[in-house]
Amino acid sequence: MKMNRRQLGKSLAGTVAATLMGTTDDLKASVVPVLQHRVTASNGWEEVLPGIWKATLGQPEDITVISERLVPPKRDALKRMAQPKQPPIPPPTGTVTDRGTTVDLPLAAQEELYGFGLQFFSLKNRGKKRVMRVNADPHQDTGESHAPVPFYVTNHGYGILIDTARYATFYCGEARDKPEKTMAAVSSGDVATSTETLYSKVLEPSQSSRVLVEVPSASGVDVYLFAGPTMLEAVRRYNLFSGGGVVPPKWGLGFWYRVSGNLRQEAVTPLMKEFRARRIPCDVMGLEPGWQQHSYSCSFTWSQDRFPDPTTLIKEIKALDLHINLWEHAFTHPSSPLFPSLVKLSGDKGVWGGLVPDFGDPGTRQVFGDYHGKTFVDLGIDGFKLDECDNSDYTGCWSFPELSRFPSGADGEQMHSLFGLRYQAALWAQFKQRNRPTYSLVRSSGALAAPYPFVLYSDLYDHRQFVRALVNSGFSGLLWCPEVRDARSEEDLLRRLQTVVFSPLAMINGWYIANPPWKQMDRKKNNANDLARGWETLEAKCREIIGWRMQIVPYLQSAFERYAADGTPPFRALTLDWPDTPGLSGIDDAWMVGDRMLVAPLFADEAVRTLVLPPGDWHNFWTGARLVGGKELQILATETKIPVFVKTGSIMPLAPITNSVADPFSRQLSVKIYGDGSLPFELTENGAPLLSVHWKDGTVEVEANPVGGYSVADWSMAVS
Amino acid sequence: MKMNRRQLGKSLAGTVAATLMGTTDDLKASVVPVLQHRVTASNGWEEVLPGIWKATLGQPEDITVISERLVPPKRDALKRMAQPKQPPIPPPTGTVTDRGTTVDLPLAAQEELYGFGLQFFSLKNRGKKRVMRVNADPHQDTGESHAPVPFYVTNHGYGILIDTARYATFYCGEARDKPEKTMAAVSSGDVATSTETLYSKVLEPSQSSRVLVEVPSASGVDVYLFAGPTMLEAVRRYNLFSGGGVVPPKWGLGFWYRVSGNLRQEAVTPLMKEFRARRIPCDVMGLEPGWQQHSYSCSFTWSQDRFPDPTTLIKEIKALDLHINLWEHAFTHPSSPLFPSLVKLSGDKGVWGGLVPDFGDPGTRQVFGDYHGKTFVDLGIDGFKLDECDNSDYTGCWSFPELSRFPSGADGEQMHSLFGLRYQAALWAQFKQRNRPTYSLVRSSGALAAPYPFVLYSDLYDHRQFVRALVNSGFSGLLWCPEVRDARSEEDLLRRLQTVVFSPLAMINGWYIANPPWKQMDRKKNNANDLARGWETLEAKCREIIGWRMQIVPYLQSAFERYAADGTPPFRALTLDWPDTPGLSGIDDAWMVGDRMLVAPLFADEAVRTLVLPPGDWHNFWTGARLVGGKELQILATETKIPVFVKTGSIMPLAPITNSVADPFSRQLSVKIYGDGSLPFELTENGAPLLSVHWKDGTVEVEANPVGGYSVADWSMAVS
Repeated sequence: MKMNRRQLGKSLAGTVAATLMGTTDDLKASVVPVLQHRVTASNGWEEVLPGIWKATLGQPEDITVISERLVPPKRDALKRMAQPKQPPIPPPTGTVTDRGTTVDLPLAAQEELYGFGLQFFSLKNRGKKRVMRVNADPHQDTGESHAPVPFYVTNHGYGILIDTARYATFYCGEARDKPEKTMAAVSSGDVATSTETLYSKVLEPSQSSRVLVEVPSASGVDVYLFAGPTMLEAVRRYNLFSGGGVVPPKWGLGFWYRVSGNLRQEAVTPLMKEFRARRIPCDVMGLEPGWQQHSYSCSFTWSQDRFPDPTTLIKEIKALDLHINLWEHAFTHPSSPLFPSLVKLSGDKGVWGGLVPDFGDPGTRQVFGDYHGKTFVDLGIDGFKLDECDNSDYTGCWSFPELSRFPSGADGEQMHSLFGLRYQAALWAQFKQRNRPTYSLVRSSGALAAPYPFVLYSDLYDHRQFVRALVNSGFSGLLWCPEVRDARSEEDLLRRLQTVVFSPLAMINGWYIANPPWKQMDRKKNNANDLARGWETLEAKCREIIGWRMQIVPYLQSAFERYAADGTPPFRALTLDWPDTPGLSGIDDAWMVGDRMLVAPLFADEAVRTLVLPPGDWHNFWTGARLVGGKELQILATETKIPVFVKTGSIMPLAPITNSVADPFSRQLSVKIYGDGSLPFELTENGAPLLSVHWKDGTVEVEANPVGGYSVADWSMAVS
Repeated sequence: MKMNRRQLGKSLAGTVAATLMGTTDDLKASVVPVLQHRVTASNGWEEVLPGIWKATLGQPEDITVISERLVPPKRDALKRMAQPKQPPIPPPTGTVTDRGTTVDLPLAAQEELYGFGLQFFSLKNRGKKRVMRVNADPHQDTGESHAPVPFYVTNHGYGILIDTARYATFYCGEARDKPEKTMAAVSSGDVATSTETLYSKVLEPSQSSRVLVEVPSASGVDVYLFAGPTMLEAVRRYNLFSGGGVVPPKWGLGFWYRVSGNLRQEAVTPLMKEFRARRIPCDVMGLEPGWQQHSYSCSFTWSQDRFPDPTTLIKEIKALDLHINLWEHAFTHPSSPLFPSLVKLSGDKGVWGGLVPDFGDPGTRQVFGDYHGKTFVDLGIDGFKLDECDNSDYTGCWSFPELSRFPSGADGEQMHSLFGLRYQAALWAQFKQRNRPTYSLVRSSGALAAPYPFVLYSDLYDHRQFVRALVNSGFSGLLWCPEVRDARSEEDLLRRLQTVVFSPLAMINGWYIANPPWKQMDRKKNNANDLARGWETLEAKCREIIGWRMQIVPYLQSAFERYAADGTPPFRALTLDWPDTPGLSGIDDAWMVGDRMLVAPLFADEAVRTLVLPPGDWHNFWTGARLVGGKELQILATETKIPVFVKTGSIMPLAPITNSVADPFSRQLSVKIYGDGSLPFELTENGAPLLSVHWKDGTVEVEANPVGGYSVADWSMAVS
């Protein structure tokens, strides 16, 4: 028997029983028997928190998503959930090999899987191979994403988290054992003459199968199970385990506008004043790379030429009731004041000529964060946009390679899986320290992200993919901003805007256009200030849509409060609320907002859309018209409104449209009653009641905590 | 210090010096020092064959492309090459970590890399990340391919082979060390407002850098260097090391037609008779899946319903001077006669309900091959089309996962890298055994493939990608068939056909159309026998193009003879012949055929193309018109001919257009003299002269070996 030294070493290192694979004795094959793998049973499910079990296979790595977690679970809320007696599936088995660790989990016939983080290409995962590779620019349905999460939930009502920072591969039911039994001659019948037919045959979900997960390099892994009994409860448990959902500051839920990357300081305030003058609501103004003296990589200093007096600028912007968000990435240019203290605290590879801070090391986060706290947060900056913290397989290979090494012990692969979250943590700590809220943007995230006050965005731009990502985000504790940049037509601009105002962060990102897109959609002309004739008409339509956002801020606040309290994702797929309605299981172009609102966006150039309305009675949000759920609707597209529905009985609070949420008038709500008003509206702050609106005896009853400043100015029955 | 057992084990297993990574003492960081990697120097370059050196890092795996090679190097031919005294670059260094092995190789400023197997998306590789993952359906420029090869050559005149069957990642110059020195404040200047600008900045090749190669899972690897001094000589050395290039049988260089997958036996002969009647040349008829009783997975038996009498069919087809090629894949259905003997000789995972034969085991290849030899080769079958032996990341996940295990010791990753080659070997052996030639098709190949009588094809279909793959194939010892299936327009059909006739295998693959594409290009109508009005006109145009192929068969034979003799790829990029002409370094839409012919295809809907004609004088192949090389041409597209050029002085042998190469008349050549006739034409067979045509004193001198049957019927000066 031949055994190389590595295998011998592995054998010595083994913590689980070693078995020898048999050779084929019946043939004179030059087969080399090797100590190729060690089959290992786990230690069984161990309950780690109410309704959450862990099973360990082999010897897990030191650096994992849970070993590196920075926010503790929300134990009290977990305890308040109904407690299942035992895990719904048996503990996993697995193998440890030279390749890494394989986990073997059951999968029943017709069992469907959802999750895996921010996925753009599909909702259902059965029969697919999902690779949790961090990639800024996924162009195919491979599982890669700038926010992959090794977590899935199934419609059998439980979730599985593989606790790894490796690029794990999930084989969701299609990796099957070889056949063992001979069969009599049988014709396969008609001959397929398309690859679609040929290659779709393997995806039949009618047999029970298994989920195989391969974790590269690791000699073991922990598997976490989140019980339901429903899919939504499993997701809630995962979010509470993550630390509960974030509650953004109210201004974060208003409207955002990012100005052109090469706008100079003197042009910023006038532009935002024009927003005010033209009554375009706005709460956050974002600066793109041009604010920095050096960017790509970053100096983290103000441009002496373009932004000579940031203090004045910030004062002016704040005077407009606007909050300020600064673009950056973590790669630290040698000219940055941060460079000397980071040079020994960085990975061995550089990016764009800059350092890659070792965010795996708390000390490095501290150095990096402190600088930001003192230099920017103290100056009045309310948030950051953390760019390029994902990875670059396909867009120019600008990022650090997976073979990078960091002083904290991580390699580049592990660092990519954790970089986004840890970068968020480094800056979030500065706001927490100052007892100031933030609501920020980030291009990469991962497992256990629910409590982080960061919303994902990306350079992708397909509208349908953006919507699908929004639907998917709710399975894995992520928030996603389907930002609006430019558009190929007026309709496309309106459709995109109509989507983003019903998302976690409503933003136009004008980083490459000098003027708002409604003034000129042609990028070149826009930058040449060659505005479209009669742009005011398009502006008016955009203003109206942005107004919708301002109206639903209180409703969104209440949805986020629930995210924090019990882990319910504020934006989520319909199948999470109606897991037993087959027609909803694949809906990837409509989503729930909060507990009662359903949004079904329209897409440019599509005159009709269909929607399976969930069971129960519904109302058209705009007209109040009643609809019977449980069947498919054909909806003709109209320019001005998209299909939004509320559950019958809903009490919907609508804020007046103000220039910003800072305007106290924004708290004088109009209440709309749909149907019998049996679904009261409750708004809390950190769990404490702020406003409660009930329907009783033909009128609304309001309880308002003066601390919140909310009142109900008027109410009406929403009937068509 | 914390060290887990796995790391301890690795430490015990280490064959190279262990070093501890330093921690950052200047901060109270909770950094866990781990035995993370072992820097290793190689043992230095060791000359293994003339002009070929090897360096070993760590402890290489048992299963590699060279340890598994089945064809010995062509030592005599290697000895005949000029012998460089020493390797042009210092030996690699590297590291062995939990992740695998990293190899570090030099890369000079402006040094460009070519190769990596059958690449569809780019020619130059500097600044790119190339992953040698086997994938049937690459849609992005990642390095993935159905025939990736861990081999590159550089314009500094040497080639590097990383001897691994793993999905190695090559960082071609963009993974740079971190900066160490502080810089004074500096402005980055203008702000980029497009991702293209931002993300292209990292690709600057003006600095020297390195090639980093990561080989997953392995504790070591062998690196082979192939000296030049030119790039072409490095490629030749690699091909001779592989065993020298294949020489196809003459019929393989004729025209091929694959009939519809659901054509029944009784319709096959009439269709091929119609080819003869309508004077469409054809040498090979291919049957698609319908010939089998069960396919997807395969029974390897004739369909009782569709092909009740294969013996008669084969007799009829052979009577038409046609050779027969059978489609199959290796996945063995339980109803196959092969199943009982393969069930213990297969991987643990099944594909399409069938077995995955363990082709890593010679005994398994023997069992699988023997069945084919006795059942099909002895019946008169001359070749096979080996489908789906690649992998399926994106097309339905039908293949075996990388975590599969095989009795021979390979895992699925290694098996994917070797499966195509070993499958070819299993069937090739049967032909060799019978002293019969074959020229076959295969969908996956890999390193050291030059001697294999198999040509690659795929399900992709972009015409430009097809051409680029043809240009790239010559760097890595591969042959590629840019097959014609359907087309979106008459022009598209003609353009594709004009390309394929100048490729290693000239084929129309009608697997999903009942009639040849010129009769009807609409797929549905074609299958409904609803033929286009006046299709005879299009047929005539196609007939003419297919005729070109028949005319150049002797020229192709001579190019392939040279492939065998000295490793020169018969189809190759212009930069291989003119490495010092900068304008040719990026040409991915023109290629050399043999030593004197340059083909620059046209693409549908493109009225003009440009071409940098290499230095020296050239002639238009069709008209004889002389052109001065070394500058860019603007060529107006014409329907009937594509730009083909020959070097001045060329003596070009042209065969008459016959129905097949079996017609003895096909050996009565017409010779065309371009310019001064100073480049004689020589045709050999296994090195022995068959025909020699020189120009002397105003006439051609012919020496013909009667064995070959060749003669020169007439000659003319090719002048316009």
